[in-house]
Amino acid sequence: MTFDTIGIITKRSDPKALKATEDLTTWLQRRGHTVTVTEEVGRAANVTDRTVTRPQEEIAHGQDLMIVIGGDGTFIAAARIIDAHSTPLLGINRGRLGFLTEIPTDTMFADLEDVLAGRYRIEDRMMLSVSVVRDGNVIYRRRALNDAVVHIGALARMLEFVVAIDDQFVFRSRADGLIVATPTGSTAYALSAGGPIMHPALDAILLVPVCPHTLTNRPIAVPGDGCVEINVMPQDVSQLLTLDGQQGCSLQEEDRILIRRSVHSLKVLHSPNKNHYDVLRRKLSWGEIPENDIPPLGQPIRK
Amino acid sequence: MTFDTIGIITKRSDPKALKATEDLTTWLQRRGHTVTVTEEVGRAANVTDRTVTRPQEEIAHGQDLMIVIGGDGTFIAAARIIDAHSTPLLGINRGRLGFLTEIPTDTMFADLEDVLAGRYRIEDRMMLSVSVVRDGNVIYRRRALNDAVVHIGALARMLEFVVAIDDQFVFRSRADGLIVATPTGSTAYALSAGGPIMHPALDAILLVPVCPHTLTNRPIAVPGDGCVEINVMPQDVSQLLTLDGQQGCSLQEEDRILIRRSVHSLKVLHSPNKNHYDVLRRKLSWGEIPENDIPPLGQPIRK
Amino acid sequence: MTFDTIGIITKRSDPKALKATEDLTTWLQRRGHTVTVTEEVGRAANVTDRTVTRPQEEIAHGQDLMIVIGGDGTFIAAARIIDAHSTPLLGINRGRLGFLTEIPTDTMFADLEDVLAGRYRIEDRMMLSVSVVRDGNVIYRRRALNDAVVHIGALARMLEFVVAIDDQFVFRSRADGLIVATPTGSTAYALSAGGPIMHPALDAILLVPVCPHTLTNRPIAVPGDGCVEINVMPQDVSQLLTLDGQQGCSLQEEDRILIRRSVHSLKVLHSPNKNHYDVLRRKLSWGEIPENDIPPLGQPIRK
Amino acid sequence: MTFDTIGIITKRSDPKALKATEDLTTWLQRRGHTVTVTEEVGRAANVTDRTVTRPQEEIAHGQDLMIVIGGDGTFIAAARIIDAHSTPLLGINRGRLGFLTEIPTDTMFADLEDVLAGRYRIEDRMMLSVSVVRDGNVIYRRRALNDAVVHIGALARMLEFVVAIDDQFVFRSRADGLIVATPTGSTAYALSAGGPIMHPALDAILLVPVCPHTLTNRPIAVPGDGCVEINVMPQDVSQLLTLDGQQGCSLQEEDRILIRRSVHSLKVLHSPNKNHYDVLRRKLSWGEIPENDIPPLGQPIRK
Repeated sequence: MTFDTIGIITKRSDPKALKATEDLTTWLQRRGHTVTVTEEVGRAANVTDRTVTRPQEEIAHGQDLMIVIGGDGTFIAAARIIDAHSTPLLGINRGRLGFLTEIPTDTMFADLEDVLAGRYRIEDRMMLSVSVVRDGNVIYRRRALNDAVVHIGALARMLEFVVAIDDQFVFRSRADGLIVATPTGSTAYALSAGGPIMHPALDAILLVPVCPHTLTNRPIAVPGDGCVEINVMPQDVSQLLTLDGQQGCSLQEEDRILIRRSVHSLKVLHSPNKNHYDVLRRKLSWGEIPENDIPPLGQPIRK
Repeated sequence: MTFDTIGIITKRSDPKALKATEDLTTWLQRRGHTVTVTEEVGRAANVTDRTVTRPQEEIAHGQDLMIVIGGDGTFIAAARIIDAHSTPLLGINRGRLGFLTEIPTDTMFADLEDVLAGRYRIEDRMMLSVSVVRDGNVIYRRRALNDAVVHIGALARMLEFVVAIDDQFVFRSRADGLIVATPTGSTAYALSAGGPIMHPALDAILLVPVCPHTLTNRPIAVPGDGCVEINVMPQDVSQLLTLDGQQGCSLQEEDRILIRRSVHSLKVLHSPNKNHYDVLRRKLSWGEIPENDIPPLGQPIRK
Repeated sequence: MTFDTIGIITKRSDPKALKATEDLTTWLQRRGHTVTVTEEVGRAANVTDRTVTRPQEEIAHGQDLMIVIGGDGTFIAAARIIDAHSTPLLGINRGRLGFLTEIPTDTMFADLEDVLAGRYRIEDRMMLSVSVVRDGNVIYRRRALNDAVVHIGALARMLEFVVAIDDQFVFRSRADGLIVATPTGSTAYALSAGGPIMHPALDAILLVPVCPHTLTNRPIAVPGDGCVEINVMPQDVSQLLTLDGQQGCSLQEEDRILIRRSVHSLKVLHSPNKNHYDVLRRKLSWGEIPENDIPPLGQPIRK
Repeated sequence: MTFDTIGIITKRSDPKALKATEDLTTWLQRRGHTVTVTEEVGRAANVTDRTVTRPQEEIAHGQDLMIVIGGDGTFIAAARIIDAHSTPLLGINRGRLGFLTEIPTDTMFADLEDVLAGRYRIEDRMMLSVSVVRDGNVIYRRRALNDAVVHIGALARMLEFVVAIDDQFVFRSRADGLIVATPTGSTAYALSAGGPIMHPALDAILLVPVCPHTLTNRPIAVPGDGCVEINVMPQDVSQLLTLDGQQGCSLQEEDRILIRRSVHSLKVLHSPNKNHYDVLRRKLSWGEIPENDIPPLGQPIRK
């Protein structure tokens, strides 16, 4: 695969990301690549004269590669825009290391050199297809890369809900909320709520209750081809569905929320110099092993 | 202490609680006690002719004992009404066992027999005094028996806050919320969020972050005489303070939330037949020890 | 599939299991099945005259179905004996419900009626193949249905170890131990150590550190075709590898522990009346939803 | 208080600690302090000519201050030696920051300057008095600064035990072990096992089950004046009691383990430049707040 046409999606509010966009555009053009951006990014990054501009919804059409410059949030939003086009995404972080934007701007030229020379690996990341059915009609349908969260929009109330998987009743529970996550999302909100880390290659959907009332409710991982259905109990306060922490839908009594693996996965392009465990180890600071601390009397000690 | 005058606070929406109120009123009067209720409860329980009625705010004035008939929620709401009057509270649960309403209606006459004969123990439960200071003025001040929770009122956003104790900076964090609980509250919302169980006699304040972004943030118990101050970072969405899951206050940028032990504790009267560990064990189903399951080959096994 | 020849493995130390074995043998023979047991079980259950007897190692040879009567421990031990023979296993619990022995003796005739009439489903359960390599030689190799645990055999010491997956370094850590579990094992020891529940159909291996020194070490699920390698750091105390809590191997300095999916999975036969979520819900007591507890003042409450 | 006579306890196996001992001895003598060490440390640190030497058991007699140079393990072992003498302890860490050895060798002269000039605070740290009663006789009694742990010494077995507090039955459980910790110990092994952080000034004893079989068993904090009794169920494998991860006692069937606050607390001397929350924050890396990561489309995001 050669990457003749390359689109760039940039976090427009971030001067560092815009500067990286400008530098990268220049660097790519010298190598003969056509670069496409949105008009807004083109102006903000001063690259209008050197780029093709397109509306955001169409930016991925016909591109061989999409580069996202920003943080993981930018990358996740981009995934929603382009997921149906099967263009691979590569993430560049303008600041610190991200789970999805693993190339820092500092080394972006060296890393891209590798990638454009064909040294990369492509990973398929599962996305969720999330629908809300009301009175028999689908009133909302979107994709999510990280997670779908059902929660209550109000002061100090518990959500009460029923979960079924492939039409089998799983549990009824009360909790602050319920997170349904992809393996990619397992290191996002689900991790804060006590969920496990799932390798992105796993074909699994992760359910993590948030502050469950029943203390034996634990995170549960189910097969990726399962259909998760959530029904919320009637309440006098608003109940919400949120995708990737970015998009939402207000729920009504008797709504059915259906969550399953999207038929479209996201193609994520990785530099050969990074592996998933390196990123995990650095993001979660697993590296530090405190020195041993042996007491003077020769006994074994624990800390 | 003799309990000549007894007030009853009842969960009015609950027919079982009203029936228990009627029965108890009759039983107490036969024994020469004066019973006081609110007018609404008097009518709903058909005891107006046999009782003194008072507005709810004044119901505890001059009473030797207050009996709460309902669930833990009824008890907690009652605690806020009467805490300043130093009248002891006794809780009767019209259904299942509560942490605070530990006498079931089934055995209420037998248990009260003991109590009225002087066989009881009185326990002081710490309450929190919670204030919000805005522009140098205290704009909100209430007591809480269980907890004060700072959280965000909106879709999928994290609270960002700073905690100081006795003017010492403790941590800055991002999380779904922060629970500040009494030992009594340790078995309520704080437990769902991963907090420890604190014996009610402890003089301690418990801080439990809800879904903290920093994975090493853990529940922390600090001395009961400490002053906890929380400052929330500016956000474009509403941030809320909620007391006991029942009362709330909207927060604004630069508000300071101050939480400390109330000078008034709540006197809770217990039947001598109950101890705290019995209640814990039953509420949390600690009793069940599955049988040992030894494999046929004689090796030790784990499960 | 017709089940002409049926072997029974019984927890010999359990009188109830022996009685069930006797009853079941009689019942099966009346229906024309040939029943095989070990000599010891034959004598203990008084069925020698009606059965074929075989040494335990060979009991599954040529059987169409193996029935295990005991608890989950009995079932797990049986899995180790017969796993290579591809005979399906069905578990009968002589007492309480098990994760693997889901048919109680109370309903065993009705449930078997279904199964023998062809109404069953067969599930493949992943097993682990666990090897210890010392000086380049494999000195130990066994299968495990639940888990392989590396831990320290001594007083209050921490294990220090390095984990690699597919030759990629994952982390170095200090902990009480490390559990490597199948999805089946996720509800055993791994659950006590804070791991998630994994549906048995998932093709995944679960790593759960026990009391890790690094607080951000979390359970991690990796693809089922991965090869997990553990190296333990030299210590002056013994370090152990334990399979299913039943079999062990003493480790020495520089031993390499290799854990991967076994080429043989275990065929588990289920009654059509049970699904996995029902078993989970009952074993973990998810069923109980405490009544709502609304306070008298009309405010929303949390508990 | 003036500190005329100062004893030094050093981690003898650590060259950095010995070098710091030598430097500190010289520095203290120039200021007119008498320095006492053990003979072994005197020789190893080349300070025999400038110091008084004493056997380790007597080293604290008559000293105004004890300085511990090593890590937290050295400090804890020292606490057991000198606790009865009411000499305050000050900890110097020869490498990284410790919970108890909070002064690094880098700044030790500046920090000691403050301390010797009277700028310090003294904190009382609760210690546990731990006894084992066998056939009515106390066969073992020791103090612990961090924790007493009851666990099983063998391969993959669960401890089964009963806990009573002040003669009230609390629970019966199966687990890998049970940790009974002081507030000081709450940041040691108990933290790895999922316990909360307890401020050292709290008068509380913390019980943390290790990998409990019952998922609703949670850490529990009880009043510091309570007497915790643990009875272990008979097993065919050894059961152990370990104090501070350093001292142990083998348990036998029907042994009673009694744990209560020691009448002697440990006086810990702190530099005025350190507070407990600073140490926590640094040891647990609470400081890092990742930058906000706002997606380009203006929606709120969670991570």
